Amino acid sequence: MFTDPVDCYAYSYDNSRNFRPPIAVVFPLTAEEVQAVVRLCNEHKVPLVPRGRGTGTAGGSVPEQGGVALSLERMNRILSIDPDNRMAIVEPGVLNQELQDAIRPQGFFWPPDPSSAPYCSVGGNLATCAAGPHAVKYGVARDHILGLKAVTGSGDLIKTGCYTTKGVVGYDLTRLIVGSEGTLAVIIEATLKLTPLPRAVGGLTAQYRDTTSCAHAIAAIMAQSFVPSALEFLDNNALNLIRNRHPGMLPEDMRALLMIEVDGSEQEIAEARAAILKACEVDGLIEAKEAHDTKSLWAARKALSPLLRDIAPKKINEDVAVPVSRLPELLGGIEKLATQYQVANVNFGHAGNGNIHVNLLVNPDNPEEMQRAEKCLDEVFSLVLGLDGTLSGEHGVGMAKRPFVDREIDAVTLDFMRNIKRTFDPANILNPGKLFPAVGH
Amino acid sequence: MFTDPVDCYAYSYDNSRNFRPPIAVVFPLTAEEVQAVVRLCNEHKVPLVPRGRGTGTAGGSVPEQGGVALSLERMNRILSIDPDNRMAIVEPGVLNQELQDAIRPQGFFWPPDPSSAPYCSVGGNLATCAAGPHAVKYGVARDHILGLKAVTGSGDLIKTGCYTTKGVVGYDLTRLIVGSEGTLAVIIEATLKLTPLPRAVGGLTAQYRDTTSCAHAIAAIMAQSFVPSALEFLDNNALNLIRNRHPGMLPEDMRALLMIEVDGSEQEIAEARAAILKACEVDGLIEAKEAHDTKSLWAARKALSPLLRDIAPKKINEDVAVPVSRLPELLGGIEKLATQYQVANVNFGHAGNGNIHVNLLVNPDNPEEMQRAEKCLDEVFSLVLGLDGTLSGEHGVGMAKRPFVDREIDAVTLDFMRNIKRTFDPANILNPGKLFPAVGH
Ligand SMILES: Cc1cc2nc3c(=O)[nH]c(=O)nc-3n(C[C@H](O)[C@H](O)[C@H](O)COP(=O)(O)OP(=O)(O)OC[C@H]3O[C@@H](n4cnc5c(N)ncnc54)[C@H](O)[C@@H]3O)c2cc1C
Ligand SMILES: Cc1cc2nc3c(=O)[nH]c(=O)nc-3n(C[C@H](O)[C@H](O)[C@H](O)COP(=O)(O)OP(=O)(O)OC[C@H]3O[C@@H](n4cnc5c(N)ncnc54)[C@H](O)[C@@H]3O)c2cc1C
Repeated sequence: MFTDPVDCYAYSYDNSRNFRPPIAVVFPLTAEEVQAVVRLCNEHKVPLVPRGRGTGTAGGSVPEQGGVALSLERMNRILSIDPDNRMAIVEPGVLNQELQDAIRPQGFFWPPDPSSAPYCSVGGNLATCAAGPHAVKYGVARDHILGLKAVTGSGDLIKTGCYTTKGVVGYDLTRLIVGSEGTLAVIIEATLKLTPLPRAVGGLTAQYRDTTSCAHAIAAIMAQSFVPSALEFLDNNALNLIRNRHPGMLPEDMRALLMIEVDGSEQEIAEARAAILKACEVDGLIEAKEAHDTKSLWAARKALSPLLRDIAPKKINEDVAVPVSRLPELLGGIEKLATQYQVANVNFGHAGNGNIHVNLLVNPDNPEEMQRAEKCLDEVFSLVLGLDGTLSGEHGVGMAKRPFVDREIDAVTLDFMRNIKRTFDPANILNPGKLFPAVGH
Repeated sequence: MFTDPVDCYAYSYDNSRNFRPPIAVVFPLTAEEVQAVVRLCNEHKVPLVPRGRGTGTAGGSVPEQGGVALSLERMNRILSIDPDNRMAIVEPGVLNQELQDAIRPQGFFWPPDPSSAPYCSVGGNLATCAAGPHAVKYGVARDHILGLKAVTGSGDLIKTGCYTTKGVVGYDLTRLIVGSEGTLAVIIEATLKLTPLPRAVGGLTAQYRDTTSCAHAIAAIMAQSFVPSALEFLDNNALNLIRNRHPGMLPEDMRALLMIEVDGSEQEIAEARAAILKACEVDGLIEAKEAHDTKSLWAARKALSPLLRDIAPKKINEDVAVPVSRLPELLGGIEKLATQYQVANVNFGHAGNGNIHVNLLVNPDNPEEMQRAEKCLDEVFSLVLGLDGTLSGEHGVGMAKRPFVDREIDAVTLDFMRNIKRTFDPANILNPGKLFPAVGH
C-alpha cells in the first residue's frame, strides 16, 4: 500500500487533464483482498477508484473525490489459455499486448485493439468497452467476453456469464459491467473469447483533395458488402502532424487520407480490395492504391495521439460517433464550426464505425480561447446528436463527458441507470461521481 | 381485447407443456397503449405477460399466475431499413422470417435464425436471446442489436443503446433487457444490426459409427481455424425419426451425423471444406463428403422438433451447452444415463456451440417413468455443470428450468439479479415468477 503523497502521485491522473491524488493506493493480489478493501471503504464511506493502467482519456480512474485508488496492476496473471474452446481466463491487470503476445503463437488474437494496447490493461479495456481500428469488422470488448468475476460496491463477489459460446440463464450481468467504468463492480477475472488470426492481411490507401469527398468515400466503402478489417481516416491537420515528424512521407496536395486494411483468404482480399478501390472512386479522389508496406504508415497513425499531446498538452479530445452515412455532414460541419470559432482542430479516427476523434487544440491559459472552444464543442455535440450519433464511441464518459450525458440519454432512462448503480453500490463508493451528470443538471 | 375464455385459449400456452389462461388478452398498437396497460396492471397489481408468438419452449409466455397476456403481434411494422448503415428498426411483432424476406433483396440477413423463424417474433427472439444453426459463426441475438425502446414494469418508456455501431455512453441496458424473458421490460421497438449475405455457401456431411467418435470430430472441427457457418449434430435416435419419415434417405449403419455448412468466397469455402474434412477424420468415421444438394437434409433437420412432438407430445426438452472440447464426455454421459434410467432419448443440436437438445421421450401418464426421467434429467444437469456447461444455450429459463437455476448461478449473484428485477418492475407484475427459482429454493 502507498500512502506517501510522492508514491500516490502517479495514481492521481490518467490521460485526461484531470488530477487529484488519492489518500492511498492499494495493490490487491486476490479476490479476498479486493473484497476486504471494498468492504472497508463501504463501511467507512470512502471513495474507491478502480484503476487499470491509467491510460483512459476521460478521467475515469482519477480519484476525483479523493479516497483510495485500487490498482489492479499486480493481478496480472493469464490463468488459462484454452485453444480448443477459443477462450482465455485472465486477471484484470494483464496488459492487452501481453495477452495478444501469449495467444498469437496459438493462432489467436483478442479483437479489442486500442492504440494504447502495450500500456493498458484488459480490465480497463472491459471497464471502458474499449476498441480500436479492427472494431469495424470484429466488434468491441463486449463482443469478446463470456464471463466475469467481479466485486460489487457492497463487497459481494459475483460470477457472471458462462464458459460456453451460448448461454441464456439469468440476466446478462456481464455486459452490464462491461463499459460501466468502474462504477458498478471491480472486475477481478475475465473469461475472454478468442478469435482465430486472419489468414492474410492486405492494405490500401486512398488520398483525397478534401475532407468531404473522403467522407463520401467512407460511406460508399461501408455501403458495399466487403467489410474492411480497418478503415481509418486522417484529416489534413492530422496529416500535417505526420508530415512534420516524417518529412517526405506524404504528398503535399493530399488533404485527407484513408488507411484501409482487408483480411481473409488471398482471394477474399483480392476481391475486397477491388470492391473497395471502386468505392473509393468519388469526386475529389487523388489516388487509391494497394499499399505494400503499410507498417510505417500504421506506426505513424498510432503515434498521432501522443504527437497531438506534444503540440497541445491540454487539447480537448472527443470521440464522437455517427452512422457512417452521416459522416459527410459531420466532418463538413466540424470544419465549419472550427472556422467559425477559430479553434485549431485535428480530426482522425475509426471511420468505418463513424467514430471520429475530434481534437480541439487549445491553450487553457487563454480564457478567451477556452470559451470559444467550449462553445464550439457544444455545437459539435448538437451536430452529432442531430445526426443520430453518440457522444462517445469508445472513450466513455468518466469526468470528461459527464455534463453532456443528459443530452444523449433521457431523464427517465438515466434514472434507471442510477437505480442500477444503487443496487450494485449502495453506499456510492465505487468511482463516485463518474459517468452520471450531476443530479439536477 | 379478448376476455372470452374461448378467445383467450390460444394465449394460454406456448411450445412447453404448460397451460394457464389469462383473464384477458390485449393487442396494443403503440408505445402509449403499452404504457397504459402496464400502468393499469401496475396500479392493480395484476400480472402482465408479454407475448410474441408463443413459440417459446420454456413456458416463458404462459400466464402462469393468470392476469393479462400482452400480445405484441399487431405491432408488426418494419419501420425502416437503412442499407447504408446496415440497420433496420422494427416493431417487436415482426416475424423473424418476414424480416429476413424484407432485407434479403438488399443483400442482408439478420443472423439469429431459430428453426421457428417463420412463426416467431423478433421481440421474442430478443427477449430470449434466440439463436440457431448459424450462431457458431455469427453469434446470437445480443450480438445483433444496437438499441431498444422498452416499457418497464413501472410503465416508464426507456430508450437504450444508439444508432451507431460503437457507443459507450451509459450502462448497457440493451443487453440487460435482451434475454430477460419479459421480466424487466416490454420491448416495443428494436434497432437491429444487419449482416451482408455470404457470397456463397457450401455443404458437407460426415457420418459416424457412434456418437462418441462424432463428438471427437466436432471438437476437432472447432479446434482448427476455419469456423463453419453451421455445425449440426444428430444422434442415431434423431436419425431414426428422419428414417421413419423419409425411408432410404439415410444409410442404415450410420449412428451419428454431422451437417456442416461453410460460407464465404469460393476459395474460402474450398479451403474450409478441405480443413474440415480433414478434422472429420477420426476413428469411427464412415464417410465425410461434400454435399451438393443439402436442401432436403436441412428441411429434415428443421422438422426434427415437430417430428419429436408427434411421437412424444410431452417430451422433456432441454438445450444444455458445454464447451465443445467436452462434448465427448457430455454425449457419452447422456447415453449412459439414458440407459441406466431406461429413458428413450433423442439428442441433436447446434454442436459447434456445444449446444445439445436433450430430449427425454416420456409419457406423463406413467408416474414411474416420469420419476425415472426426472432423476435422469437431474443427473444430466449435474454432468453439464461438471463440464463447465450451462443449463440453457438458447431456450431460456421460463418456467421449465427455474428449479435448476440456483445450481448454475450462486445465491449472491442471483440476489443481484432479483434486485435488478425490482428496479425495473417494483410491483412484480411483468411475467412474475418466471426466470428465478422460487425464493427459499
Ligand atoms: C495513446 C492512447 C491511445 C488510445 N487509443 C484508444 C483506442 O484506440 N480505443 C479505445 O477504446 N481507447 C483508447 N485509449 C484509451 C484507453 O487506453 C482505454 O480506455 C483503455 O481501455 C484503458 O485501460 P486502462 O487499463 O489504462 O484503464 P484506466 O485508465 O486505469 O481505467 C479506465 C476506466 O476503467 C475503470 N477500470 C479499470 N480497471 C478496472 C477493473 N479491473 N474493474 C473495474 N473498473 C476498472 C477505471 O475506474 C476507469 O473508469 C487510448 C489511450 C491512449 C493514451
Ligand atoms: C419448432 C421450434 C423450433 C425452435 N428452434 C429454436 C432455435 O433453433 N433456437 C432458439 O433460440 N429457439 C428456438 N425455438 C424457441 C422459440 O421459437 C424462440 O425462443 C423464439 O425466440 C420465441 O419467439 P416468440 O415470438 O414465439 O416468443 P414467445 O414464445 O411468445 O415468448 C418468449 C419469451 O419472450 C418474452 N417476450 C416475447 N415478446 C416480448 C416482447 N416484445 N417484450 C418482452 N418480452 C417478450 C415472453 O414473455 C417469453 O418469456 C424453437 C421453437 C419451436 C416451436
